[in-house]
Amino acid sequence: MTPQEYSAPDFTAPALARAPEARFEAVAADGVLPDGFFSTSNLPTYVRAGGRWHLPTRPRMDCAIVERSEHLEVIEPRRLRRGERVAMGLAEDGSEGIYVHTAGFLGGAHSANEFRFMSSEVSRERPVNYEELAARLIEEKRRGGFLIWVAGPALVHARARHDFEWFIQQGYVHAMLAGNAVAVHDIEAAIYGTTLGMSSTGKPTDGGHGLHMRAINQVRALGSIEAAVASGLVHSGIMHALVTRKIPYVLAGSIRDDGPLPGIHTDALAAQDAMREQTVHATGAILIASALHAIAVGNMLPAYHTRYDGVPTPLMTICVDQTEFVVHKLKDRGTHQAYGVVTNAQDFMHVLRFYVEKGTRA
Amino acid sequence: MTPQEYSAPDFTAPALARAPEARFEAVAADGVLPDGFFSTSNLPTYVRAGGRWHLPTRPRMDCAIVERSEHLEVIEPRRLRRGERVAMGLAEDGSEGIYVHTAGFLGGAHSANEFRFMSSEVSRERPVNYEELAARLIEEKRRGGFLIWVAGPALVHARARHDFEWFIQQGYVHAMLAGNAVAVHDIEAAIYGTTLGMSSTGKPTDGGHGLHMRAINQVRALGSIEAAVASGLVHSGIMHALVTRKIPYVLAGSIRDDGPLPGIHTDALAAQDAMREQTVHATGAILIASALHAIAVGNMLPAYHTRYDGVPTPLMTICVDQTEFVVHKLKDRGTHQAYGVVTNAQDFMHVLRFYVEKGTRA
Amino acid sequence: MTPQEYSAPDFTAPALARAPEARFEAVAADGVLPDGFFSTSNLPTYVRAGGRWHLPTRPRMDCAIVERSEHLEVIEPRRLRRGERVAMGLAEDGSEGIYVHTAGFLGGAHSANEFRFMSSEVSRERPVNYEELAARLIEEKRRGGFLIWVAGPALVHARARHDFEWFIQQGYVHAMLAGNAVAVHDIEAAIYGTTLGMSSTGKPTDGGHGLHMRAINQVRALGSIEAAVASGLVHSGIMHALVTRKIPYVLAGSIRDDGPLPGIHTDALAAQDAMREQTVHATGAILIASALHAIAVGNMLPAYHTRYDGVPTPLMTICVDQTEFVVHKLKDRGTHQAYGVVTNAQDFMHVLRFYVEKGTRA
Amino acid sequence: MTPQEYSAPDFTAPALARAPEARFEAVAADGVLPDGFFSTSNLPTYVRAGGRWHLPTRPRMDCAIVERSEHLEVIEPRRLRRGERVAMGLAEDGSEGIYVHTAGFLGGAHSANEFRFMSSEVSRERPVNYEELAARLIEEKRRGGFLIWVAGPALVHARARHDFEWFIQQGYVHAMLAGNAVAVHDIEAAIYGTTLGMSSTGKPTDGGHGLHMRAINQVRALGSIEAAVASGLVHSGIMHALVTRKIPYVLAGSIRDDGPLPGIHTDALAAQDAMREQTVHATGAILIASALHAIAVGNMLPAYHTRYDGVPTPLMTICVDQTEFVVHKLKDRGTHQAYGVVTNAQDFMHVLRFYVEKGTRA
Repeated sequence: MTPQEYSAPDFTAPALARAPEARFEAVAADGVLPDGFFSTSNLPTYVRAGGRWHLPTRPRMDCAIVERSEHLEVIEPRRLRRGERVAMGLAEDGSEGIYVHTAGFLGGAHSANEFRFMSSEVSRERPVNYEELAARLIEEKRRGGFLIWVAGPALVHARARHDFEWFIQQGYVHAMLAGNAVAVHDIEAAIYGTTLGMSSTGKPTDGGHGLHMRAINQVRALGSIEAAVASGLVHSGIMHALVTRKIPYVLAGSIRDDGPLPGIHTDALAAQDAMREQTVHATGAILIASALHAIAVGNMLPAYHTRYDGVPTPLMTICVDQTEFVVHKLKDRGTHQAYGVVTNAQDFMHVLRFYVEKGTRA
Repeated sequence: MTPQEYSAPDFTAPALARAPEARFEAVAADGVLPDGFFSTSNLPTYVRAGGRWHLPTRPRMDCAIVERSEHLEVIEPRRLRRGERVAMGLAEDGSEGIYVHTAGFLGGAHSANEFRFMSSEVSRERPVNYEELAARLIEEKRRGGFLIWVAGPALVHARARHDFEWFIQQGYVHAMLAGNAVAVHDIEAAIYGTTLGMSSTGKPTDGGHGLHMRAINQVRALGSIEAAVASGLVHSGIMHALVTRKIPYVLAGSIRDDGPLPGIHTDALAAQDAMREQTVHATGAILIASALHAIAVGNMLPAYHTRYDGVPTPLMTICVDQTEFVVHKLKDRGTHQAYGVVTNAQDFMHVLRFYVEKGTRA
Repeated sequence: MTPQEYSAPDFTAPALARAPEARFEAVAADGVLPDGFFSTSNLPTYVRAGGRWHLPTRPRMDCAIVERSEHLEVIEPRRLRRGERVAMGLAEDGSEGIYVHTAGFLGGAHSANEFRFMSSEVSRERPVNYEELAARLIEEKRRGGFLIWVAGPALVHARARHDFEWFIQQGYVHAMLAGNAVAVHDIEAAIYGTTLGMSSTGKPTDGGHGLHMRAINQVRALGSIEAAVASGLVHSGIMHALVTRKIPYVLAGSIRDDGPLPGIHTDALAAQDAMREQTVHATGAILIASALHAIAVGNMLPAYHTRYDGVPTPLMTICVDQTEFVVHKLKDRGTHQAYGVVTNAQDFMHVLRFYVEKGTRA
Repeated sequence: MTPQEYSAPDFTAPALARAPEARFEAVAADGVLPDGFFSTSNLPTYVRAGGRWHLPTRPRMDCAIVERSEHLEVIEPRRLRRGERVAMGLAEDGSEGIYVHTAGFLGGAHSANEFRFMSSEVSRERPVNYEELAARLIEEKRRGGFLIWVAGPALVHARARHDFEWFIQQGYVHAMLAGNAVAVHDIEAAIYGTTLGMSSTGKPTDGGHGLHMRAINQVRALGSIEAAVASGLVHSGIMHALVTRKIPYVLAGSIRDDGPLPGIHTDALAAQDAMREQTVHATGAILIASALHAIAVGNMLPAYHTRYDGVPTPLMTICVDQTEFVVHKLKDRGTHQAYGVVTNAQDFMHVLRFYVEKGTRA
């Protein structure tokens, strides 16, 4: 908020002192500019003309700079008329006679050619490179990496359960860190075909609000999730895949828990210690649809891991959430290395699986 | 906010007057309940015991009702000890001696068995039934329906451009209603391979901030989008597919527009009139990633269309957005019939196409 | 998604059978309608004319119904010309010759006059009645109610700390339920004037990232939060106010916790039991800026409390969050009675305090 | 996503070559550290011991570095036992024997002491300095600045109408740029006391869905908003204040408009031209609750304005919205200078007015 003091460009610096005059060309038809016109930004822009530097009037972005009898003016292309002369060039560093002064406005570390759109790192408008994500997972699996998956209950709730099961079966999951609810919903789905009483197509079922309590009760009666899998009660899903493939998992208790299921770490510190034993091995982490667990695990993860040759290498950390907020919060809690994917967990799992299948067939 | 006055159940009504005593069973092991225990909600719940109706103490949801020497109490299952007796049953209408009184709390129109989770109609946590969506599209195409697609620029920005092109080519798009920006980004992508200067993998390019202005300038030089397609300048993408397949489109101008491109309706009322000529034919509408255009078109759309036999039938209206907010706003502006899909536009298009391809192969 | 079968109105029902002809009036000037014109919705609308019921063509909302030689048509007011005749009336139940058929479209429970805007219960666009909220708090305090406040760390983080302290000092807080982080940030603020190393005006401080760890360490050295207050180390803020006024508080541990502070319930089940001892007394609950704790406490709260005379009365449950999502999720987890306030926690506390101060002066 | 190659620190650089040995101190009681312990981040951290640089094992943030017989290890403070020795110091640049290597991980432009929390510029968790905002407005008014306010309809919808009227009356508004809906809601409120048929306390009214159409119709009958004010029909609110105080306003038409009111610029390019005539004078801009208009005006605004002495100075640009998304989008469309306030428009106006009143009394 506090206004910065403006520091003007140093026009005596060699690059600017040697700058040529700006070049101008005439508009050939109303509202149509010559190719190679200079397209403005909203930053102070100096134009070399008649041996001096001028700051055109009425500055704004996405416009042309027009020569008027007395001065230079910034004008929308559609308003230009045939014969008017506009400044030409792509360079913003003075080398074609136009200098965009970023220093005073975008902070000291910026150089020329720095004005741009889409500079947010995390945005629903930024394309997700699923090919590259898939390639990274395939590569980690190939060279014996250790991928930690952190999951929120929406993953089960919203039908990504089968896709997650597939990733476990295919060997892309080396540890799962989550809360009681992920296991509860997954086991409710295995026994009753519902999550929180809602069918897999999103419809409520009669008496559905008690089904997760009945599912928990049955597992408690058997004594453990492992026993529920062994007994055949839990014959599909995430927990079934983890147990049958002997993948380590840590389920942390929380103040919200129903039940809980047997095997949950109800003590937060015991849960942290158990998770940390997994995070120290991580060569990559995929955090999906859980603010609480993403930030918890983010706190435990280093920004790097050390390769066989002892060289630190950045630890791939992918955070998937419906809104930018969780990714920004994760970064604001220190996990600067997180790469954000802003989408629905269900669709993420589906598309990622599609690309991993494609990448392994190739 | 204003507290309602409580209206107690009418215990003289036949259903309640004839209600049996509630049934209780003993807990066989600590923290494990008998199958068929009554699972509580947070609503006033009356239990028939000793010829009278009791309201158990300490009410809350997801618990059991336990018989104590003096009274009935609501207790978490994990806290129950062997031998304690809990109320049994699934019915909430008194027929098994337990009556959940929804009337005073969920509004007058509700009946018994109404307490449930996931009652929001629009939620990122609700599974999207892509099979059904795909089947509806296939069916509309088969019987000659008229599907209107409303698109925001994020659709182009985030790499769904190829999938949208596919839907046009396959005959699922009968009119496209959008703004100037959709066409600008699409044509920038066709000419330069970028959108707002960002590459299709989400990386900024040098001098990229001027590319959309250069793309507009080239189309203005040729005189129309149709001429730009005919000339080969625009050889791929959404506008190319619409023009070559002669699908009607309406591009409305807005206060935000750069350019604009030739053919944009810069007058809002002319744009409304042009869009309305399409909406009167609609048998379905898919609104993606645009609050402005979704609500504008929502205002024009009836909640129904009239079939060949003159019978009104609900008009399928699908609204896809990253957050629940736009869908709720659309409903709050009167388009109550909208079905909300809360996800990223890019992933939506990809997964929908996948299921349409699958559905047509079947 | 699934299309419902349309059920036509029963025109033989007495109300419709006796309905008068619709009344029409001429437009006096281009684009200006007679007062009392009928304003359309998007629902099937039948107009009585010439002894028959007609369904006008080109239906949409916010328009007028115009008499054409052959038929009735729905037209935008701005497009009407002088002399054209439009249908008149406000009633939608047939009593003025126009019948809006809601039944087939808004669900069976709806009656006439049901079409409206802003039907979402929770929306940032819905005005918050702070006078009424303040009056409810003042009334609860006056008659000895028990108000539970559930707080997330954003409350401390974003400068609402002083306002919360004020509510505690003034006797509006009877129990606080929260997590370790609320107390950590509050105590960091008391000792260092920062939260997570950020000053109270939002600027980062040198070495700030370690300050919360140093604050925790100092309290651990003293043995308890109470000792830290007694020693003068913690001389202001939320925890100071709670301790000095002997208000019960429960701080639940979580997988995300740093430290933790002494006195945290690190076991989730012990924490639940401690919270439940407070919720059973609640006559009102205010849940601010915490999805985890709002839903946890929502699960424990009944939808009602029982007054001195034994009559159940709805339990005031106010949920404040930056987005509609948390409030909808709370409702989707069964706390249907929640009233949502969609705003920034900092501003909520400030404005609420302003109105409570005003209300108590009156 | 693409992994960067790691560049190790240059230990021969003078600052590191001359670095002292790190200092260690013993823990005096279980889980309590000596004051001044070194608090870790998640970045590669080198510790000088025995004449060499060591990278401790099991790195993570918010921990201490402990001397083990064989090596150095990163451990949670709560897990330390009496007598264990931990590394001491606050400096991260090697001057106390500990060096945090940011270069390879936070990008090349970063220096030592750069790891921190809350580095997002726009966040609901960042305190808003209303005192400073108010001081800026008061100062702009005092020295004859030109403040442009851009408003979305939520401002009227959510009861901030009176506060906005107050700012106009007090001379803080020098131009208002908005759409048709702001004026429609404001005039509906003046005539009927509702917005979209919802009362000012958020309740629906009978027949309310047609009231905005009736309000528009009455103004159309009178011919202009100015005539509606002069006639007494519109006797309060935003438009009344602007008209009676002769403040310029531009209302742009859009594809969503009802009506529209007379005086709306229905042509987007005419509307842009009219707005640009105001933006060239701006010394500050406040953009509230409108993505469309905020970005449109952001595109027109330079990042600076030129003072009486010809020196460019940054143009204060404040963007208020319910979510971070709109502010990030505004920045992503090139308005990098925007300062974001993430809150409800209604509360923002209320609190800002409170501080401006306080600031002018002082």
